[in-house]
Amino acid sequence: MALPAYIENPETWEKEFTFFDSLKVRFSETDAFGHVNNTVAFVYFEQARIHYFEHLGLMKEWVQGPHMIVTGDLQCDYVRQVKFGEELEVGVKAAYVGRTSVDVHYMIKNADGKLCMTGRGRIVQIDKEKGGSAPWNEDMRAVLETA
Amino acid sequence: MALPAYIENPETWEKEFTFFDSLKVRFSETDAFGHVNNTVAFVYFEQARIHYFEHLGLMKEWVQGPHMIVTGDLQCDYVRQVKFGEELEVGVKAAYVGRTSVDVHYMIKNADGKLCMTGRGRIVQIDKEKGGSAPWNEDMRAVLETA
Amino acid sequence: MALPAYIENPETWEKEFTFFDSLKVRFSETDAFGHVNNTVAFVYFEQARIHYFEHLGLMKEWVQGPHMIVTGDLQCDYVRQVKFGEELEVGVKAAYVGRTSVDVHYMIKNADGKLCMTGRGRIVQIDKEKGGSAPWNEDMRAVLETA
Amino acid sequence: MALPAYIENPETWEKEFTFFDSLKVRFSETDAFGHVNNTVAFVYFEQARIHYFEHLGLMKEWVQGPHMIVTGDLQCDYVRQVKFGEELEVGVKAAYVGRTSVDVHYMIKNADGKLCMTGRGRIVQIDKEKGGSAPWNEDMRAVLETA
Repeated sequence: MALPAYIENPETWEKEFTFFDSLKVRFSETDAFGHVNNTVAFVYFEQARIHYFEHLGLMKEWVQGPHMIVTGDLQCDYVRQVKFGEELEVGVKAAYVGRTSVDVHYMIKNADGKLCMTGRGRIVQIDKEKGGSAPWNEDMRAVLETA
Repeated sequence: MALPAYIENPETWEKEFTFFDSLKVRFSETDAFGHVNNTVAFVYFEQARIHYFEHLGLMKEWVQGPHMIVTGDLQCDYVRQVKFGEELEVGVKAAYVGRTSVDVHYMIKNADGKLCMTGRGRIVQIDKEKGGSAPWNEDMRAVLETA
Repeated sequence: MALPAYIENPETWEKEFTFFDSLKVRFSETDAFGHVNNTVAFVYFEQARIHYFEHLGLMKEWVQGPHMIVTGDLQCDYVRQVKFGEELEVGVKAAYVGRTSVDVHYMIKNADGKLCMTGRGRIVQIDKEKGGSAPWNEDMRAVLETA
Repeated sequence: MALPAYIENPETWEKEFTFFDSLKVRFSETDAFGHVNNTVAFVYFEQARIHYFEHLGLMKEWVQGPHMIVTGDLQCDYVRQVKFGEELEVGVKAAYVGRTSVDVHYMIKNADGKLCMTGRGRIVQIDKEKGGSAPWNEDMRAVLETA
């Protein structure tokens, strides 16, 4: 299978993940095919992304400050089926930092260390009042770039 | 099977439903047992309840006025398994009107007219500012009692 | 507020919980009212119930043996609103064991030990082939009654 | 905002949609930001895709025959926030037909005809027994290519 365009070198790409979120597949997340429904990957991505931003100390800024974040786009590549009860590790990283946005990458592995899903999506910082996109300040940019 | 305590006389109970919400079971609502996951019944109830309140002209009061509603309790009795793609009718009625609350009943039938789920739950009107329960005004009570 | 009919004595009822499942509220589980959507309580119940049955060693019987389980009914009483990010403990216990069913009770508390939701529901053992209800064997009954 | 790579010419791309699925946003699909949660877009895509395949007469083949379909990848671009109660039209089309897969595109508009989300994803036909990808037969290819 061809690699997704957002993965240039699989080995390098994988090594850059240093933050992981753990979860266990719920029964209500499966579908009649007997596996995790494809829409649930994005629930896992969101959960891991928020924990990642909390870990970086960025969530407070968005809850208390004049800016918040919105999802620009999201994508997922399904590599291996996941079943009820499986324990998964969801890697998250800030792959590219733009002026007002950050490209977040995701990698989901099962307990055997086998790759199940990969993904990415652009998060955009916006002004709560004006609505338009808002540039990162120096501190946020530094946090995201060294993450 | 014994009847749920909220259904005294099944025939009378069924006849009192005059409002119905239609839906088609989504694939993402099934689980690995091949049927609709039991948690989804409450998604159907909520959807039908909101359409019912809109139909009665009550939603506007809660969006614009000083009061809103919260869910006090919810219950569902599962009579018949439902599969992906089935077309369901969800009956909703205001069964008992209290001073600050209303007991809403639900009845879900499939396209063959077979009963699949029944349920009920208490909706409480509360004051948006103070948080405590708030009595229905004359008009709302009249609407709910004649519904 | 009146107690639900399934809680005779709150203190005794609470003390009987010895199995707890931990979870953290996901952002996708909130709704536009800013709290956990009421339908999500049943997702938490299901997750905790399955972990409880795994803990009791019963899940294997249903996966490999001639019987499985279905949900007869479910109910939830909402005591306190829950927000995104809250860490919850979900207590589960087998409250009453019937010939072919078990009444499972639930208690959800937040990190401050405050009660957020209580609930119950009947789980019925059925024959995979014939479909009808199937009595517990001696071992299963013993496990459920001493749980 | 730059166009997603899967939309070469927006006008042409939009005109090629001839199948539409209608839906109304459920309250349980919103999140604490007050809009539809980003993960729900993929629930809408799945629902519309299945209705599209039913419309083309392909679902029967996968239910009864030796082949079935799996999701290879999925992506969504979020153009405009969607609120509770909005009525949406989800356009679906088979954009490119491969040997064993089809690239399905999605376009979601609100009641004012404003674009809310666009997306795409590869669906792969696989052999139920062997698990590997399975080529379309002549009839299926013809249906997909003229769709």
